Amino acid sequence: MLTNDKLAEWDRESFFHPSTHLAQFARGEAAQRIVTGGEGVFIQDRDGTRLLDGFAGLYCVNVGYGRKEIAEAIADQARELSYYHAYAGHGSEASITLAKMVMDRAPKGMARVYFGLGGSDANETNIKLVWYYNNILGRPEKKKIISRWRGYHGSGLMTGSLTGLELFHKKFDLPLAQVIHTEAPYYYRRPQLDMSEADFVAHCVEQLEALIAREGADTIAAFIGEPVLGTGGIVPPPAGYWPAIQKVLDRHDILLISDEVVTGFGRLGTMFGSDHYGMKPDLITSAKGLTSAYAPLSASIVGQRMWDVLMQGTDENGVIGHGWTYSAHPIGAAAGIANLKLIDELGLVKNAGETGNYFWQTMREALGDHPNVGEVRGEGMLCAVELVAEKEKRQFFDASEGKGAKVVAAMLKRGVIARAMPQGDILGFAPPLCLTRAEADQIVSVTRDSVAEVLG
Amino acid sequence: MLTNDKLAEWDRESFFHPSTHLAQFARGEAAQRIVTGGEGVFIQDRDGTRLLDGFAGLYCVNVGYGRKEIAEAIADQARELSYYHAYAGHGSEASITLAKMVMDRAPKGMARVYFGLGGSDANETNIKLVWYYNNILGRPEKKKIISRWRGYHGSGLMTGSLTGLELFHKKFDLPLAQVIHTEAPYYYRRPQLDMSEADFVAHCVEQLEALIAREGADTIAAFIGEPVLGTGGIVPPPAGYWPAIQKVLDRHDILLISDEVVTGFGRLGTMFGSDHYGMKPDLITSAKGLTSAYAPLSASIVGQRMWDVLMQGTDENGVIGHGWTYSAHPIGAAAGIANLKLIDELGLVKNAGETGNYFWQTMREALGDHPNVGEVRGEGMLCAVELVAEKEKRQFFDASEGKGAKVVAAMLKRGVIARAMPQGDILGFAPPLCLTRAEADQIVSVTRDSVAEVLG
Repeated sequence: MLTNDKLAEWDRESFFHPSTHLAQFARGEAAQRIVTGGEGVFIQDRDGTRLLDGFAGLYCVNVGYGRKEIAEAIADQARELSYYHAYAGHGSEASITLAKMVMDRAPKGMARVYFGLGGSDANETNIKLVWYYNNILGRPEKKKIISRWRGYHGSGLMTGSLTGLELFHKKFDLPLAQVIHTEAPYYYRRPQLDMSEADFVAHCVEQLEALIAREGADTIAAFIGEPVLGTGGIVPPPAGYWPAIQKVLDRHDILLISDEVVTGFGRLGTMFGSDHYGMKPDLITSAKGLTSAYAPLSASIVGQRMWDVLMQGTDENGVIGHGWTYSAHPIGAAAGIANLKLIDELGLVKNAGETGNYFWQTMREALGDHPNVGEVRGEGMLCAVELVAEKEKRQFFDASEGKGAKVVAAMLKRGVIARAMPQGDILGFAPPLCLTRAEADQIVSVTRDSVAEVLG
Repeated sequence: MLTNDKLAEWDRESFFHPSTHLAQFARGEAAQRIVTGGEGVFIQDRDGTRLLDGFAGLYCVNVGYGRKEIAEAIADQARELSYYHAYAGHGSEASITLAKMVMDRAPKGMARVYFGLGGSDANETNIKLVWYYNNILGRPEKKKIISRWRGYHGSGLMTGSLTGLELFHKKFDLPLAQVIHTEAPYYYRRPQLDMSEADFVAHCVEQLEALIAREGADTIAAFIGEPVLGTGGIVPPPAGYWPAIQKVLDRHDILLISDEVVTGFGRLGTMFGSDHYGMKPDLITSAKGLTSAYAPLSASIVGQRMWDVLMQGTDENGVIGHGWTYSAHPIGAAAGIANLKLIDELGLVKNAGETGNYFWQTMREALGDHPNVGEVRGEGMLCAVELVAEKEKRQFFDASEGKGAKVVAAMLKRGVIARAMPQGDILGFAPPLCLTRAEADQIVSVTRDSVAEVLG
């Protein structure tokens, strides 16, 4: 390890960090943390600080840090064959084996898997495939994509357009014209407080139907949604939401893209969120949980009805003009194989369901009655605590007060990482799936103390 | 290694390969090769076939295969810390050290480096930054991007739009409206055969000026180009092209993005192609050569005048809404550090210039007089052989004859990988930068024999 000061200086002078206040960071006014290692749910930085990572990196280190099985699989693959491309029918034992393992775990009706590098590029692939599909079917007008406000689907130009959050649109001229947004299935933020969950689902369906009617179903190619809204606030859907939406999509011949970058490979206590909610996707986006972030890899899992048309497309037009140099990178594939094996061996899908539900229910018991806690919600190993200025009238804090960020900062002082979600005062939790009940209790206790410190 | 048949079957039934004829592959009618290892410029497949890789994967394994130094760096990093994110000022020793190393090697005037995963996502980042830049400067109309026909800048929706090749547009509704294309600096395909190189450069400048006049300079944000056209045909620019283009851009306040995914880190015999041709880029795209593909990593290197505005942007608007979960992944960073060290230690930039020039000049001597060879061209460790039906009149073969692909297939039988470039009958070569003269001679000899077999 280099001296602290040298590294910190290089960092400020050379490194353009994502999602950072660039000017403050360059001037040395913003937080700077150099992470050196981790084990289980804990990370360690170069100053010797040890933190319980209640967000698993960015909801991605699902098996936890420091897993030797994955590190050794990466090391072995690096020595054997670090890279060869996957174009024109080339592959490696690792990439083919992982393709088979993904298909064995995928929901019914899926046909093939395309490997990319991260969630954003997987959704980029998905939109390309959706457009290609309708061109092959001779429906060149059927191209718009419906996403939801508060959805998160990436931060590229198209994928940031799919994302329905202001931070990712502002000053970037997004969303692009091909993307339209509909109501978020966010029951706590329902338009009228006296709506029941069933009323609210009916309202979401009405909004969607109205949007489709306005635009014309023959202009709409696909609907994209996360089984549980992630970066938009960690919001499980109201009961009956997905079956009701699925019916609308079926009626209008609109494809469903299930964005399982957060939920794929176990986070909800089922292998996929699509299984959990009975969704019937034509495309599944996955990334984070596929390798637990030990190496970059994403997967676009393509359903049979799309695959049939893609094959027809290459019979009619030859080679498909899509590919990344690093598609199906052997290092990522080796990490994926070791990761999926570990998930099975450690029973992490089951633990995500059991300990996850224990975690958010314990959080609800501990904080649900606090006058500034509007809602504690969760599903599997996901949990959110929504802060409000006034509970009965559901009055939110003014964003400029930064209450969520203040609570998260107070938690960090107590050794626990949570995430202040970007839109609303929402504390987000997505710990590694190996979380124990004792660790869950620690997060809950630190959250309670920190909320008390900031809000009384 | 699993039995051959099992792997081959999983491959056909599970794996969606990039840039592949999907239907033929699924039906078992297309080539299938499972690569198991490599050393230097050679790869080996599971059937025991050993091939001299004259294209370095996809112009990316610049240091050659089987480099233990990089494999061990990856292994060490995997054991120490496979992943933590780089959001909000977080980093790892590897990612910060690599940022410093990249800046030390970058052309003058560059300020910061943003790490992504591959060339496509790096260009996606670049376009976002260009739009943000002009929004911060209060020029919301100045947004169009000029690219060149035959440019290659990725295969996403925006990046595939920047790409100026039919394969990547057809059936995908590309290019998007924000992208406009101008003349490729492809002297061999000049519109009139009697044009001198200087005439042709003047013609390219006129075309660009006319496009800018037609669209209005105040609607055009940036010009993107590879120092040497890559996938569009491996075409070094005519003498004087870049200085002439640079002048036009400067006059109209248009940013220059130098896409150095192929040329960055040594392929032309200089660290960057921008240095080689005296370009003054505001953004440099790099990927392949940064890690020699041992792990996925890209870099968008941001020039000072853009960086100043990006900082202003975050002072005015807060955190920048851009980031990939796997930005600055520690495994990629560790591979990058070891790779850049190896390039220095082995003197590969120098070898790319010296042996590269020997290679394409030897190719020119061996094939230049063949009646079906229109041109042999090259620069550093890049070479192309352009096939024609009739040399004097520069008459091309009909694409349906697939002459280029046939020569490449004949070469493969003789143990050498070349690439049939996607548009035109062009044999492409981009060997690892460690190529020796003896290996160069072998490629040339196999090319000559294969051209003779197919074309007489």
